[in-house]
Amino acid sequence: MNERLIAHYRIDANPGEARRRAAALAVEQSIEMPPDAVGDAFVRTEVMGRVESVEPDPTDPELSIARIALATDTVGDEPGQLMNMLFGNCSLQPDVMLIDAELPASLVGALPGPGYGIAGLRKAVGAGRRALSCTALKPQGLGPDALAALAYTFARSGIDVIKDDHGIADQPYAPFDARVPAVQRAVARANREGGGHTVYAPTISGGPARIARQLDLVHAEGVGAVLACPMLIGIPVFAELVRARANVPVIAHPAFAGAVRIAAPLLLGRLFRLFGADATIFPNHGGRFSYDRATCDAIARYAREPLEDHPPALPVPAGGMSVDRVDELLDQYGLDTMLLIGGNLLEAGDAMPERAAAFAQRVADALGQSS
Amino acid sequence: MNERLIAHYRIDANPGEARRRAAALAVEQSIEMPPDAVGDAFVRTEVMGRVESVEPDPTDPELSIARIALATDTVGDEPGQLMNMLFGNCSLQPDVMLIDAELPASLVGALPGPGYGIAGLRKAVGAGRRALSCTALKPQGLGPDALAALAYTFARSGIDVIKDDHGIADQPYAPFDARVPAVQRAVARANREGGGHTVYAPTISGGPARIARQLDLVHAEGVGAVLACPMLIGIPVFAELVRARANVPVIAHPAFAGAVRIAAPLLLGRLFRLFGADATIFPNHGGRFSYDRATCDAIARYAREPLEDHPPALPVPAGGMSVDRVDELLDQYGLDTMLLIGGNLLEAGDAMPERAAAFAQRVADALGQSS
Repeated sequence: MNERLIAHYRIDANPGEARRRAAALAVEQSIEMPPDAVGDAFVRTEVMGRVESVEPDPTDPELSIARIALATDTVGDEPGQLMNMLFGNCSLQPDVMLIDAELPASLVGALPGPGYGIAGLRKAVGAGRRALSCTALKPQGLGPDALAALAYTFARSGIDVIKDDHGIADQPYAPFDARVPAVQRAVARANREGGGHTVYAPTISGGPARIARQLDLVHAEGVGAVLACPMLIGIPVFAELVRARANVPVIAHPAFAGAVRIAAPLLLGRLFRLFGADATIFPNHGGRFSYDRATCDAIARYAREPLEDHPPALPVPAGGMSVDRVDELLDQYGLDTMLLIGGNLLEAGDAMPERAAAFAQRVADALGQSS
Repeated sequence: MNERLIAHYRIDANPGEARRRAAALAVEQSIEMPPDAVGDAFVRTEVMGRVESVEPDPTDPELSIARIALATDTVGDEPGQLMNMLFGNCSLQPDVMLIDAELPASLVGALPGPGYGIAGLRKAVGAGRRALSCTALKPQGLGPDALAALAYTFARSGIDVIKDDHGIADQPYAPFDARVPAVQRAVARANREGGGHTVYAPTISGGPARIARQLDLVHAEGVGAVLACPMLIGIPVFAELVRARANVPVIAHPAFAGAVRIAAPLLLGRLFRLFGADATIFPNHGGRFSYDRATCDAIARYAREPLEDHPPALPVPAGGMSVDRVDELLDQYGLDTMLLIGGNLLEAGDAMPERAAAFAQRVADALGQSS
């Protein structure tokens, strides 16, 4: 009943000032009113946040790391409320960043976690112990037939997972109801003809009614996975509707996740996994985005490390990657990884099928040096 | 069909470098692949983002403002997709901030907008042309009876709207199903006894199934308003479920909005309003949060300015405010405002009823110098 979770915040202040900020944070993220005005003893001892420690940030002496213990009961086992307690009001304070969270076993157990995990995704695509390959249908603006033709080519080339570009949702040029059956049938035809097991992951988007209809169509068409952006559709929706009703592996995409100052390993690695992601896409270092290598390694670690009874989730580095980096990337991340390459394949123009096949083959053949 | 919305980004680069970044942004927020690899003419001309202008930021020569035109069709009239197109992937790039968006009339008209607006909220609480007062039930951890007693006192003191603290959601110490009837009945009793029209706004939270049940109870108990955090429950959920099914005024709370890399006036003022907020809470300058006065004025302006056929939304400055600032605040914001004071009332301890009554009275009596 009086279990605590411990949130780690990086505060833009040296330790002296940071102690004061940390005390304020402990109040802000719990009772949100002056402690002296709280008459209720239970609230003061069991609900009010508590500063566990304030220390200099080892990477930067101008910054401090505060560990704040919050009552798990304030979360009520609800994913959106967990985010509220971790970073609700203090998200509005620019000098504070949420960098990590120690969650008690009871809370971790109460969250959905991945339904399929790495093993389930491997099984879906017929992979043994090897890494997986993934590409994206691009660009948005293409109609269903063009997307289906692209998907057919990708599937015949042997790529394991074909996802919608996250921007392809339910627009007039390729509505979900027209696109998904067309692409799924193309992928299924490619699998029959080529003997492969490529899986299509369309983007699930919109409000709950629309999402429910999209999932109905996913089931009716035999689609093998889905993609969703938890920050766009809402974390509780992701956890409740997508994870609980998808009945296929769920790939999380980080769109809109950067607008909040939460460290990527925590958000994309651990939290999205706890909310139901079987795979988690993140921007790879050296590409179009700015995460450094240590951050990327940490995202992968958080996605795969032991987490009570939850299976590991597949890290999916993406963004500005190229086929010639496959071996280097799998040396870095190991084989429990899915590499996502989109634009680099399409850049090959007429030689796209060959490059796609090379991508699929190099991933399938790679031994990886670490796991 | 080829209408454009224009997103404004502040880029952490001088204009020379910013031109290059802006071109990349235009691609990132539309086709998300190298333009040369796009064979489809329709996509290249009608879907790909277009840089409209790049200029130095008038407030800081080290920064630049890029205006990027994106095809409205990529939004598909869906609120989550609008956020995706405005700030999906580039949210992951720390040198970019979304500061404004010019939306075409057709898109604005397609979004829900407030169902009640300022006039509807005034009517609900029986106010004429005056400003409104609001307070919060705090702290979380109190049980339903304690919260109901607090609500009774606030309502008897004449405060117009009593909201749940945004942290009070559906926790074991005050589950929604127990809390809401208790508080509503206390407020109703206070209204009967005192002749007032205080409205209670409980926090709607969780996944879609839970939200639907909460709204059912809101209706069954005759509750007069609801509070929701769009970023926590998900923007599409807010727009679809809460706005469309609430059938009472909806107050938006900025928890998790972390509005540092999306400018607050745009997010809390215009977008939350377009997604269905009748009132929008924001951190007031000089309180516990860091918005400056100009930003606060802009939030209020965006909430109330003409926006096609949508009614204005009520700005609700909050956070660290005190009763002795009422006149100053209403001079600043005008009478089309609701002031939210929480902790300052409870700090009065045994004198809380008197302070609450003073708050309600000063707001009701204030003439305000500007509107």
